[in-house]
Amino acid sequence: MVKKIEKIALFGGTHGNEMTGIYLIKKFLQHPYLLKRSTLQVFPLLSNPKAIKSRVRYTEIDLNRCFAPEDLENLDQVLYEQLLAKTIHQKLLNNQINFVVDLHSTTANMGLTIILSDTNKFHLQLSSYLSLIYPELKVLYYASKEKDKLLRSNTDLGLSIEIGSIAQGILDANLFIKTEKLIYSLLDYLETYNQNKIEEKSHNLVFYEVFERIDYPRDGEDITAMIHPNLQFKDYQPINSGDPLFLTFEGENILYKGLSEVYPVFINEAAYYEKGIAMCLTKRREITVTFH
Amino acid sequence: MVKKIEKIALFGGTHGNEMTGIYLIKKFLQHPYLLKRSTLQVFPLLSNPKAIKSRVRYTEIDLNRCFAPEDLENLDQVLYEQLLAKTIHQKLLNNQINFVVDLHSTTANMGLTIILSDTNKFHLQLSSYLSLIYPELKVLYYASKEKDKLLRSNTDLGLSIEIGSIAQGILDANLFIKTEKLIYSLLDYLETYNQNKIEEKSHNLVFYEVFERIDYPRDGEDITAMIHPNLQFKDYQPINSGDPLFLTFEGENILYKGLSEVYPVFINEAAYYEKGIAMCLTKRREITVTFH
Repeated sequence: MVKKIEKIALFGGTHGNEMTGIYLIKKFLQHPYLLKRSTLQVFPLLSNPKAIKSRVRYTEIDLNRCFAPEDLENLDQVLYEQLLAKTIHQKLLNNQINFVVDLHSTTANMGLTIILSDTNKFHLQLSSYLSLIYPELKVLYYASKEKDKLLRSNTDLGLSIEIGSIAQGILDANLFIKTEKLIYSLLDYLETYNQNKIEEKSHNLVFYEVFERIDYPRDGEDITAMIHPNLQFKDYQPINSGDPLFLTFEGENILYKGLSEVYPVFINEAAYYEKGIAMCLTKRREITVTFH
Repeated sequence: MVKKIEKIALFGGTHGNEMTGIYLIKKFLQHPYLLKRSTLQVFPLLSNPKAIKSRVRYTEIDLNRCFAPEDLENLDQVLYEQLLAKTIHQKLLNNQINFVVDLHSTTANMGLTIILSDTNKFHLQLSSYLSLIYPELKVLYYASKEKDKLLRSNTDLGLSIEIGSIAQGILDANLFIKTEKLIYSLLDYLETYNQNKIEEKSHNLVFYEVFERIDYPRDGEDITAMIHPNLQFKDYQPINSGDPLFLTFEGENILYKGLSEVYPVFINEAAYYEKGIAMCLTKRREITVTFH
């Protein structure tokens, strides 16, 4: 059973070109009362000031891959973001943070998504509560080998909020407002939880579990095909073996050959071209979440 | 009267994170026969290889603002893109290029647009021809004080192709295909022109003329408002005095107070935040283009 969640760190600008989180944090820094709840202390933080200033994802290395315990302990890793990760980690320890929320945005059409590295009961209850309020909300369970490297993994409890599709470097007022509302509901839930007032009722929860990542077809480093038009902006919609994944520059379809009823996400995320990820494949899960 | 157009330079990657043009040029370099026309010699060129490699708009200064004659002549301007501009200009001279096409993309919802710095008869005839083939095509007349600085201004004749909305750093197969088709039609027109086979028929042409650029509301350098949701993705749709332009982070509307029946374009272009441009306002023009 989880104790009370009292100290929450809310991060924006972990990637310096994802403006939604950056401007939400700036808003909260200017109007701290918006995050006030009687049982909570919420710290709004801009993760990567240097990348934010330059409007780039990162300056030397992706900050959101710098938090593995062995990397934090390695004092010879001194790229800017590696240093930054160590100070962020220390700040979380010093302030006894027990819940991290990390705000992101994506060029993929993932709408409003919360991403979990862990399906512990607390996370599932929280997800279930938020899904009831926001029927459009998607829950993504994404526990890759890299999960320890993520900012949200600094605490046992925590999640990322992902909003899209939105280009890097811009704000979309509708997506800004949606993300802001979700944050308030999340804080309301934690408050209710701390007050032992969560209604003890079971709910169905649908979530999507990442099981594979697919790269673009390539010739050396260079890609040789694009996301197929049938798939572009179709995150969380099922595909089956034989459906087109890519369209080569010469106009040929490249088909998916794999499990049926899989749900691609992070389709055509700009930052993932360099990571060798054209999309992540997920399986849809439906479970009953109990609250007692 | 314009002589024959025989040598055409077709540029992609003038901005290194606008992938549509980059991958079209790569395709043409690999399959040069696609650009073959009996009276034309077409040179496909990647403008800024260093920016393309780093997937950024530019490395030191915007290449597409480096072509003013006084800057080209100034041998003390030695930032990477300033040097590059001088060599590109020289290459155009050496090859006796008389028409430049520069491929761009935008996060604004401008669909398929051709941009002219000059409304000479040749440009208008060409635009009229292309508009008949592609009813969705928009023609933008954008002759700012900066027009001499643009790559397309290296020759008297030439234009930019702009496609959107698309995030920086990604490809969208549908937009790639649309741009490719437009290029072929453009070459077909030049070929027909050279062969003196243009049909001598008058056509109506609608174009949009930029007359003003509007910045975001700011506090110092930082913006204090977003593009209003009513306006986001509504390029080329008319607004009137009293319509909302921006939404502050606190939720207040900021209204447009100016001429009525104006048509904003480049709404929320990512690269224009740093240039102090939230949108460009245009007036709609309708003229008759004659061909004799």
